[in-house]
Amino acid sequence: MKKQLGAKPWLYPMPTPLVAAAHAGERGVFTVAWVGIGSGTPATVAMAVRATRNTLRLIEKSGEFTVNVPCVGQEAIVDFCGIVSGRDTDKFAAAGITPTPGTVVSAPLVEECPFNLECRLTGVHDMGEYRLVLGEILETHADEEILDEAGTGVDVGKLDPLVYVPGSREYRGLTAKVADAYSVGVPLKGRL
Amino acid sequence: MKKQLGAKPWLYPMPTPLVAAAHAGERGVFTVAWVGIGSGTPATVAMAVRATRNTLRLIEKSGEFTVNVPCVGQEAIVDFCGIVSGRDTDKFAAAGITPTPGTVVSAPLVEECPFNLECRLTGVHDMGEYRLVLGEILETHADEEILDEAGTGVDVGKLDPLVYVPGSREYRGLTAKVADAYSVGVPLKGRL
Repeated sequence: MKKQLGAKPWLYPMPTPLVAAAHAGERGVFTVAWVGIGSGTPATVAMAVRATRNTLRLIEKSGEFTVNVPCVGQEAIVDFCGIVSGRDTDKFAAAGITPTPGTVVSAPLVEECPFNLECRLTGVHDMGEYRLVLGEILETHADEEILDEAGTGVDVGKLDPLVYVPGSREYRGLTAKVADAYSVGVPLKGRL
Repeated sequence: MKKQLGAKPWLYPMPTPLVAAAHAGERGVFTVAWVGIGSGTPATVAMAVRATRNTLRLIEKSGEFTVNVPCVGQEAIVDFCGIVSGRDTDKFAAAGITPTPGTVVSAPLVEECPFNLECRLTGVHDMGEYRLVLGEILETHADEEILDEAGTGVDVGKLDPLVYVPGSREYRGLTAKVADAYSVGVPLKGRL
């Protein structure tokens, strides 16, 4: 039996990256769980941001932002950047994180996050109290310590990304691999 | 040191729900990793779908779809629904999953997935070879076995959601709780 829980914005799992931007000497960083991929051509991020967010103002003024994926162990930083406004404070300093230059955009990367995306703002859609922010992914960065054996991709076990769980509002990590994609479902083709 | 990996659509972690729709006696289901929350007011899903996908046609014709969150153990079904087209076959039958009526929309829920969202199509944006599909969440359903103690939310440990890892293309699960959100970062406020 299924129980109806109402119209909840719950999806499992959710990421919980730090999103950063800068404009005219001001910089901002905040935590976004409502983010995913919005297209593959070009590679694009889609994220829902409350319209009053301070960093959103910087994103819209500069036309650029970064998405910085944290690892297990960085949950206090991630949580802090989600519950405190940067309107009157420098959250980089307070959280002990380092803004570092990207290679394409002027928005700062968060040095301590092991995986980072540089994005150029390509669209904003008003969605009630939120804005759906679209950004083309121009470059990705990975700490050398999290690279796979070939050095061309990410070893997710080494990345150990932090996961957000909505509803119960908690952080979790990832287990070891359960199965290979584009593989474990192939035997079911025999039923066609 | 960080290494640049190019403009990749990689975010960690990703969900991997089954998305289903029906129209005029035809039904379809496929797997979507590029999905997240697009707004909170109203609660809205945003997902990137390749424009040629058969189920996208059913979503656009019917104006409705469901998002069905699978658990660890269902990775073969999830994988199969991602790699096979439903244009000439009934994937529900082939995958051994059950289309079951929702309470609001006529799109089928996937009975075997323990958490489900019913959505009404509210927008489609062309994004290169993809379309960004927006859907208002009208209802959520949870198997009674995955409810929390209060019976009003989801116990994510019982749900045990399947996770998709891009790049290395693998499925993983979630570990136990690392920390409580809106809590673990509070001590950092002392630095302000």
